[in-house]
Parts: sequence; structure tokens; C-alpha cells
Amino acid sequence: MKFIHSFANDYSEGCHPSILEALTQSNLEQHPGYGDDSYTQTAVALLRKMVDDPYADIYLIAGGTLTNLLVLSAILKPFESVIAADTSHINTRETGAIEATGHKIETVPTPDGKLSPELILPILNKPISYHTVRPKAVYISNSTELGTIYTKKELTLLSEFCKENELFLFIDGARLAYALTSQSNDLTLKDIAELTDIFYVGGAKCGALLGEAVVITREEIKKDFKYHIKQRGAMLAKGRILGIQFTQLLQDGLIFQLAAHANSLANKMTLAIKSLGYPFLTESYTNQIFPILPNEVIDKLKINYGFFIWEAVDRNHSAIRLITSWATPEEKIDCFINDLKFFKV
Amino acid sequence: MKFIHSFANDYSEGCHPSILEALTQSNLEQHPGYGDDSYTQTAVALLRKMVDDPYADIYLIAGGTLTNLLVLSAILKPFESVIAADTSHINTRETGAIEATGHKIETVPTPDGKLSPELILPILNKPISYHTVRPKAVYISNSTELGTIYTKKELTLLSEFCKENELFLFIDGARLAYALTSQSNDLTLKDIAELTDIFYVGGAKCGALLGEAVVITREEIKKDFKYHIKQRGAMLAKGRILGIQFTQLLQDGLIFQLAAHANSLANKMTLAIKSLGYPFLTESYTNQIFPILPNEVIDKLKINYGFFIWEAVDRNHSAIRLITSWATPEEKIDCFINDLKFFKV
Amino acid sequence: MKFIHSFANDYSEGCHPSILEALTQSNLEQHPGYGDDSYTQTAVALLRKMVDDPYADIYLIAGGTLTNLLVLSAILKPFESVIAADTSHINTRETGAIEATGHKIETVPTPDGKLSPELILPILNKPISYHTVRPKAVYISNSTELGTIYTKKELTLLSEFCKENELFLFIDGARLAYALTSQSNDLTLKDIAELTDIFYVGGAKCGALLGEAVVITREEIKKDFKYHIKQRGAMLAKGRILGIQFTQLLQDGLIFQLAAHANSLANKMTLAIKSLGYPFLTESYTNQIFPILPNEVIDKLKINYGFFIWEAVDRNHSAIRLITSWATPEEKIDCFINDLKFFKV
Amino acid sequence: MKFIHSFANDYSEGCHPSILEALTQSNLEQHPGYGDDSYTQTAVALLRKMVDDPYADIYLIAGGTLTNLLVLSAILKPFESVIAADTSHINTRETGAIEATGHKIETVPTPDGKLSPELILPILNKPISYHTVRPKAVYISNSTELGTIYTKKELTLLSEFCKENELFLFIDGARLAYALTSQSNDLTLKDIAELTDIFYVGGAKCGALLGEAVVITREEIKKDFKYHIKQRGAMLAKGRILGIQFTQLLQDGLIFQLAAHANSLANKMTLAIKSLGYPFLTESYTNQIFPILPNEVIDKLKINYGFFIWEAVDRNHSAIRLITSWATPEEKIDCFINDLKFFKV
Repeated sequence: MKFIHSFANDYSEGCHPSILEALTQSNLEQHPGYGDDSYTQTAVALLRKMVDDPYADIYLIAGGTLTNLLVLSAILKPFESVIAADTSHINTRETGAIEATGHKIETVPTPDGKLSPELILPILNKPISYHTVRPKAVYISNSTELGTIYTKKELTLLSEFCKENELFLFIDGARLAYALTSQSNDLTLKDIAELTDIFYVGGAKCGALLGEAVVITREEIKKDFKYHIKQRGAMLAKGRILGIQFTQLLQDGLIFQLAAHANSLANKMTLAIKSLGYPFLTESYTNQIFPILPNEVIDKLKINYGFFIWEAVDRNHSAIRLITSWATPEEKIDCFINDLKFFKV
Repeated sequence: MKFIHSFANDYSEGCHPSILEALTQSNLEQHPGYGDDSYTQTAVALLRKMVDDPYADIYLIAGGTLTNLLVLSAILKPFESVIAADTSHINTRETGAIEATGHKIETVPTPDGKLSPELILPILNKPISYHTVRPKAVYISNSTELGTIYTKKELTLLSEFCKENELFLFIDGARLAYALTSQSNDLTLKDIAELTDIFYVGGAKCGALLGEAVVITREEIKKDFKYHIKQRGAMLAKGRILGIQFTQLLQDGLIFQLAAHANSLANKMTLAIKSLGYPFLTESYTNQIFPILPNEVIDKLKINYGFFIWEAVDRNHSAIRLITSWATPEEKIDCFINDLKFFKV
Repeated sequence: MKFIHSFANDYSEGCHPSILEALTQSNLEQHPGYGDDSYTQTAVALLRKMVDDPYADIYLIAGGTLTNLLVLSAILKPFESVIAADTSHINTRETGAIEATGHKIETVPTPDGKLSPELILPILNKPISYHTVRPKAVYISNSTELGTIYTKKELTLLSEFCKENELFLFIDGARLAYALTSQSNDLTLKDIAELTDIFYVGGAKCGALLGEAVVITREEIKKDFKYHIKQRGAMLAKGRILGIQFTQLLQDGLIFQLAAHANSLANKMTLAIKSLGYPFLTESYTNQIFPILPNEVIDKLKINYGFFIWEAVDRNHSAIRLITSWATPEEKIDCFINDLKFFKV
Repeated sequence: MKFIHSFANDYSEGCHPSILEALTQSNLEQHPGYGDDSYTQTAVALLRKMVDDPYADIYLIAGGTLTNLLVLSAILKPFESVIAADTSHINTRETGAIEATGHKIETVPTPDGKLSPELILPILNKPISYHTVRPKAVYISNSTELGTIYTKKELTLLSEFCKENELFLFIDGARLAYALTSQSNDLTLKDIAELTDIFYVGGAKCGALLGEAVVITREEIKKDFKYHIKQRGAMLAKGRILGIQFTQLLQDGLIFQLAAHANSLANKMTLAIKSLGYPFLTESYTNQIFPILPNEVIDKLKINYGFFIWEAVDRNHSAIRLITSWATPEEKIDCFINDLKFFKV
């Protein structure tokens, strides 16, 4: 890419340098495979401490779609469905991976990518009958595909609603670190663990080469999870490479420092774009922002910057998606802002 | 592990140091995701050249079981089966991953892990009928689970047989580098590509952190393969990490140098063990060997060395599996041989 | 049921008496199983003639949901989806049967249960990418779940649209006989065959004990269909019982006479209800009608008549579904109309 | 078929005349669909009484393969397998229907089609690990594909073994009536219910037009079974036609009278064939027998009689399968015996 910088996603670079150092340092050590190595054990212990649940079952998986299809096929019976936002990753960006495991996604329209009891209720209010699938899980992302996050109150209400209705609550945390370090966040990792049945802390989009750490707190879905992992091809022979990475990311809260860096740069862009008078598709204080710009401005920006055109807003304006990461240099942000100012008519 | 050395498998260590260097060097470069990066393109170009087929479709996948279930579910229709050795990895070590995609494995007993037209024929001789599955693929491994390899003549006969019977021939090449550098090998990578419809060059067991390079030469199964990859969760966001690794492994034939090292150490062990008068379960010139030892000798070896007890041979003897890798130091081999000599009664 | 009459559905009674006679007459004859009997051959020949396609492949299947899941899983590749109305049977009344075979249903909101190129287009306009499922089939019902039917013009436009976009067009014809004998219909069975790739003529809801006749006209999906039938458990040992029934229903167009009877009684109800000033949820000239009545009237009707309350329209009114069949006696219609008149305030 | 008689199978004719009478008599009654009719309730009550378990859950399903795939996919988790004889129907005659639901069949070689703890043990003795499927069900047939039956002692031992090893025991009872009325049988229907977790009483091969009655006695697999039935397409709209048939077959034990008739005619054939000095492939006292005849005799018989050539025994002899049914007339047996005598050299 010959861009000044790409804001296309948060997985354009490799990984935080400390991870490569740790991989190098441990390289010739011999370890058992399949996640039975001591690094994985260390990462698991660190994460158990952070979620304050010594009995949480934790597994390191190599890929987000793989994790989503693994988790949902493991916790649902054949006739059970999952409820998700219509804009959710599992519904729009996974090539039918969930359905390929046999399960229906029941979608809910939502403007900001977030679910609430009110939005879910109509699905539950259908008459219960063996002629229809039975909803058994709610899938949400934090942060969402639209950069938005859940407040503690919102997640608590959703969690209580799920408990009352015997639904598993599952958070796709591919970008959880960004959510938990957003300036508008009031949730802790411990809250997340307490309020959900299963969730994951994403690594690939938050500074790792690859890997997602699945945390299971609900007793009834812990059993035999490793069988599911192996059957879905989600178990790495060299499990150590996930263990080493999550050990690095989790110790001293590195993953949150990296996410905070990305959030702060995104906020800087947001403020600058707002000051130029441009509106936003959603209100995001995480590393994904969606300014709405004149198409002619977008055309000029496209020459030097990488990003996705998210959707047309009207004939002359579109929302674009800008993403920052642990690796984004502040001067590239400045550069982008300057160009944007310059392009403003 | 407090062993002097573990011969338990060829994925006990990290990866060849040059891979870590390449990952480090490229770390801050920005690349598109999902295998659209230039490193992946380089690796693909290298491998196309090595198989001498500029039209081969090549994809880098993160895991062996994942690759097997991906390939077989992509090339088989719902009612089609795959023929495999009873000892094959897909039949014994993948938690029913193939069946989980809906396909029957029709197994063939074979003493050395290898298939031949003669062994497969009885399955094809069943009356053809819509009451039974229809075999459409033959799955073999080279080297096999028992360390054995195919000769050019054997593979040619099998390939012709498959063509005549309209069966796809698929090689699980998790340990293909070991096979192709074995002293008894007469096959080239180009032969492999010509004689099969789809195969892969394994990375995880041959010096990479993870990754298998799938090569598709048969036209009719090339189409839409990326849809299958994504749906099965087999596509890494940071595809570059596979591209970088295979670029390293393939350029200058590094993967073959690493495999040759492992083979030669395994052969050294074989000769020493034979000279002590112990028989072997199979005749292997690759990095997996299966000596048959007295149980009391095994008990003593177990204290200082890691390995699997493969199977009981009689009341007092068992076959063990010893595996070497790119990372095995020759002095550990010497150490093992000395101990074995010492333990001989 | 102690009702005066149930209008709950069109499968409340057994089957047309001539079918029982034919079953009785042939009862001791010996026939081969699995649809290889001469009655099935006769039914197939009759239907081939009616659709004017001597090369159509025709199979008799025991059940509507079974037929839908069989057809869609047979014609779709793993990553391909089917487009259907949000109110469609496969989306709302089959317990996720289609997803259980691995395929996503992409739903389209539609007020009258019918699809059109305009309604489908937004789904096709998503960027084509291996990150999303690829639509490959359009599923419609004629008549729909809401009693509406397709005109020849509508179906022709939809058919052309599907051809242009390489989509298979599949009609669920569970109630096709009612559609084709509706007073507002201008389609023939031959038109249906020409304009679709695969469809079925329903028996269970049109006078048979059970059975749906699948007609395949598109060459590329004919191959190996019997393997799919057997694998899904959709093949009856005594295939003759389907052959005998469809022979009866098809010869002399009996199925259409039965449907016309039901339609005419439904129309009689419609006229009477309209004359009482009640509106309807949809405009239906088939055997399913959806009058909107005051809830207090519904409560009174419920005592003596069976029917489903389809949906609440406002606080005081609901749409109910009334269904007639081949077996509905005209005096029950009169009885219902009289009661309705009496209940009118 | 222009044969004197076909002994090819027990589903060549329609159904016992009393069933057609009952269907006719009830034809115009209105009943709710999906098995909620009073006839199904009557059949269920009859069968509950016969198995002496008022809490048994009982469902009437339309087809044997459909029942097998329904039951196994309902009671197994994704990574669990079923153990079955290599000659079993699910392994050889169902086009991979079980694997198509995602489950591996672990097969056991057995000369007479029967399983025992000794035969199953080697499968359980594999090391327990998440790298392999976990056996959770044992599938047997009574009578088997080879006409053999289980004694009470054999079934008791197998049942105890399954309980000890936490395996569900499932009997495919497509021909259960023949087994329970065999002269060498000492099992009752009540025994069957007590010794298994789930089984079915087959109708299609024992005098019904179609239908299998599934009996679930194990508490943990009762829940939500109707969801599975609907999702697999195994629920008939007109459930009454199964209810009426099983009411007929079960009341006054009609199904057993029909089976006893078939068994006695098969025994007559067996005695006659033995008296001619011909051996048998298996020792069967049910309605399927497997005499071994000279090929030239078989060639002559084939002209006037329908039957399957089961397998070649040596160059000049083959085993054939002869099947009788409720509808077989004794004079056809005599005819066959006379011809066989005549053909004997």
C-alpha cells in the first residue's frame, strides 16, 4: 500500500513488539501442544484473576469467526437459535458460518448496533411452539460493529433480562479492550464476566498476531468444551504461541494500554472532524469512528489514506469508517486532519 | 517439562529463527488482511513455481484439522464420502471433524498407513446405489501417521486409479517436507502436484509457528474456495503472518533443509536402535520412528525423555513413537542412544 | 373437537375417498419399494404431461418441511443462501430446518407474502465478497402463507430476474392447486414449470393423506437427486402409497376440482364477510382468508368454530385465518356466515 | 412384477386391510394435525400400556431412515459418536444419513449382525481424549439385518454394559414385531422398554402403509423431542394417519399376529430348504432367511421369484435373502419349495 496511512482496520500491522520478543525468547523451549503448555496456563491464570473468577474456564482460540461458530455451536442445541443485531458480525461478515453449524440467527434491527431487552422482546413474544426455533442465546459485541459500547446499566439490564428468559448472554469481544478503555465506559472486565455466560477478549484486533481468549463462567456450558474446540479445527498444535501472546497482553494490562492509545487517537480525529462541522453516523468513543463527509472530500482523501466507505447517507454524502490501532502513529492522525481541513470547501 | 529431551512430537518448539526475524522486520508495515497481503502473494508465487503450475490456486490456512475439514467439505457433495486409512488422522485424531461437516469416512485397514488401488477397490465394488454414500475422494498422508512414505510408483498407480474412478486424490501434507527429504523418497513437489487434485504443504510440524499451504490443481474444485475458507473460520485477519512464514520456509527450500535435518537424526536413532537388536513397527525413513522395546526399558527411558507409547505389541513389549524436528539437537540423540545402550540388559 | 366445524386448516380430514379406494384396490399387489413401483411411474408420467416436459425429473416426497429442506440442501452449496419472504413457511414454521442443513435464509419484508425483483434487489446489491453468503435461490410459495397468489406477469418478471442473476427459482407448492384454480389466477401448471427451476405440487393440503410431488426442470440440479432424498430420510419404503395417491389426484385433474371447491367456499365466506362491512388483512381468492373482526366477535365464534387468530390489528380487532378444503361442506359455511351475522352488533 | 411371488422384502404389499378400513371409517372426521389427534393419543396409550411405562414419551414418525437420523441427532452432542455393527442399516443402507447430521458411526465387525459387550469394549478402551469422538450411544437392530435376534440374556448384558459405560442403548425396531414373535425369542415389549433408553416399533415393514413408533423411556432424552421431529421434517401434517394405523396394529396385538404369520412361513421354508441339504448364512427364526444355494439353482429360481442375492459365498454358491410378510400366502411358499426341490440336481 502506497498510502500515507491506512485507517482501514486495526489488524493492518503485525503485533506489539513485546510479543515478538517473548516469542523469540521462548522459541527453543519445548512445550506440550494443544494449549497444555505453561504459557497458556499463565495467561489463563492472569485472566482468571482479572475477571476475579478462579473457576472460569478459559481457552485461547485462533480466529474470531472460528470462535463465534465454535461458541454458538457448542452452547446451542440443534433447534435453538441465537438473537443478534442485524448489523452484527455473525450476521453480515462470516459467510453464514453460524448457519453452517445448523443454527438460525434471529436478527433485530438496531440503529447503533446495540441490543436491549426492548429490542429483543418481540422475538420472545412469538408463541412458543415446536414449529419454530427456540431462542437460547443473545450475541452482542462490545464495542459493536459501529464503534458503540454498552454502559454498565445497559449490560446489567440485558443480563438480567437474559437470566429471566433463560438465554445465554455471549459477548463477542474482538474489540473488548477498546470498549473497556473508552472514555465513556464504566464497565470492568470483572463486570463483563459476571454479567455474561461466555465472552472473549480479542487479541487479533488489539495487538496480537492472532488469538481470542474465550472465558466461560456459566457452569452448564463448561463441560467438554475442548471436544468442540478440536472438532471445529480451532485448536492449534503450537498452543504456546497463543499462550505467550496473551501472557504479554494481559500482564501489566498491556492490552488496555494499547487500546487506550488507539481510542485517544480516534477521539482526536473525532474532535477535529466535529470542529470542521461534519456529523457522525454513530457516537463512538472507541477506535472506530464513522464521520459523514461530502463524497468529493472522500474522493480526495482516498488518494492518500486507506479506509472503508461504510454507507451512502444521501446523494452527496457518505459515512466512512476510520480505525486506529495500537500501532497508529500520532503524526499520521495529524496529517489526516490537516488534509481534511485543506479539502474542506 | 523437566526431560532431557522430548521426542513426543515435532511441534514442541517455536519456529525456525528466520521466521521470527522476518516477522519482526515486517512488523510495522501495513498490509491488507485475509491473505491479500504481498507476503502471501510472494509465498503463493514461490509455491506455484515449485509445483511448476502457474495456475494452481494456493491458500494459507491456520491448522491441520481445520484444513482437512475445510478441504473435504469443500470438494464433497452432501452424499459423497471420503476413503481413508483406518489409522488416518481424520479418522482417529480429529474428534469427528469430517463427519461434523456431514461426510462419511469409509475406512480401509492397512498395516503401514498407506493406501493402494487394491486396498480401495472393495469399497468401490459395492453396488452403486442411492441407498449408500458415493465415494468421491481419497485421503492419504505423506508421510503417514506411521512414518511411512509413498514411492513415485505407488503414488502414480493410486493417482491413475483415482482418475479412472473419478475420485479426487487429496494428500494431507502436514509432514510432506519430511516425506520428500526422506532417503527412500523419489517424489518431487511437482510430482505431488501433478498426481493429486489437492494437497497441502504443512508448516506447523515443519518449522512454522502455524500454517498449512493448500495447493489446488484440479480446475473444478478451485471455484469459490475462499467462501469455504471464510465460512469455516479458517481465514486469519492477519493473513500476513502466514504469508511471511511460508515465504521464509519456501525460499531457498528452507523447509526441506529443516526436514532433512530431522530425518537424518531420526535415521541415526534408527540405526543405533537396530544395532541393539530391537525391531520396529514400521519401516520409516522420516522423522517419526516406532521401535519396539521391552516395557522395562521403556519405563526407564520415560524418566528422562518424552515420547508416546504407541501400542502394546505383546505382554512385555510395546512400540513407542520417537519424533525429531528441525529443532532437535544432535547431542540429545546421542544422549538417548547412550541411555538406551545402558538400559539394555 | 366438538366444534360445529374447524376452519383451522386444510389437513383436518383424511383424504379424497377415491384415494382410499385406489389404495384398497391395489392393496395386495406386490411392487418394488422406494418409488420404483408402476403407480409412481404413472403419476410421474401424468405430471410430466401436465407440465409438458417429458424430461422433467419428478419425485414424490412425504412431507412439506421435509421437501423444503431436501430441495434447498440439494441445490445450494455450503456457502450459498436462499432468499425468502420474512413470513415464509421456511422462515417461520419449520423450526430452523433449512439452517439445520447449513444454509442461511435471507429474508425480505413483504406485506402480502409475495416477492418481486424490487424486493429482492437490495439483497443482491450488497457488495459481492467471500465475507458474506452468496444468494443462489429464491423461495416463494404459491399460494402464499397469506392466501395471495402470483399473476403470470409477476412470476414471469421474477423468473427473468432470477435467470439474469443466476438464482434458482423454487416454488413451495404446498397449496399450488388452490393458487391455480383461484378466480384471479392466470397461470397454468405448464407456466409454473417453465418459469421455475424446481417446484412442487402439494398433496397433503390438497386432498391426499400425505405427499408432495417435486418437479425439477433445470438440468444442473437433476443429477443425483435420489441420493439427497435417501440421505434426508425422505424416501418411503412403500413409495407406492405416494404413487397411488398422486395418480388419483392428477388423473382427470381431480386435485384441481378439489381445490376449486375449497376456493369457491372461501370466496363465498369472503363475500358474506365483506357484505357485513369487515375488512381483510390480504386480498385472497384462494382457500385461506384473513378477515379482520372485533375481538368480541372472535370470542363468540371461537366457541363453535376452529380457526387461528393470525395477528392483532389494533387493541380491539384481530385478523383471523379461515381455511376451507376439499372436504368442507357448504352447509358449514352457511352456518358460520349466519352466526357471524348474528354476532354483528 | 410378473413373478409367481416376490420374497424381496416385507414392504412389497400395501397394508393390513383393517388399517384401510379404519382410515376409511374415520376419513371425514376433523382432527388437529401434527400428532395431536385422538387416534395418535389412543395409539400412544396402547403402547404405553404394552411397555408398562405410563411416562414413556411416544412419537409416530414416517420412515425408518428418518427415525434413525432423528433419534441419533437428538440424543448425541456434536462430538459424540454411535457404535453400530458394520452390517447395520445406518452404516450400509442410509446414504450417510447419520454422518449428514454430523455424527460419526464407530463400526464393529460382527458375523451375525449382533453386538455384545465384548465386541464393543475395544472401542471404549481407546484412551479417552478430546482428540477423538466420544461414544455415547449403541445402535442395534432386533431383528438384525441378518434375521438374527437378541435373547433376553444377551440384551440384559448389553443393557447393563451400556449403563455402566454411560451409553444410550437404542434399538432400531423396524422388524421388532418379527423378533418378538420368533420361536427362539424370550423377550417381551416390556423387557425391550426396560432394557433400552429409546427404541421403536416399526410399522412399515410389519403391516402398515408407513410409520415407526418411537418409545423414549430415558428421562434426559425426552425433553424437547418434538422440536427435533419438526426440524428434521419428520412430523406429518396429518398425524392422524399414523395414529390410526398404530391403533389398529397395536390393539389386540395385531402387529404380533401378522409377524407370527410371516415368521411361521419363513420357518416352513427354512425346514424345507434344510431338508434339501442346503446350509444357511445365519441362523434365523424370523421372517428373513439366508439360504446358501448353488448359483445355477439361483438362476432358475430368479425367473419366477423375486429375492436379493445377498453375497457370494464361494465361486459356485451364493447366499440369497428370502423375506416373508403379513401378506405372504402359504401357497406361494409351497410353490417355491416345490420348485426348489425340482431344481435340485
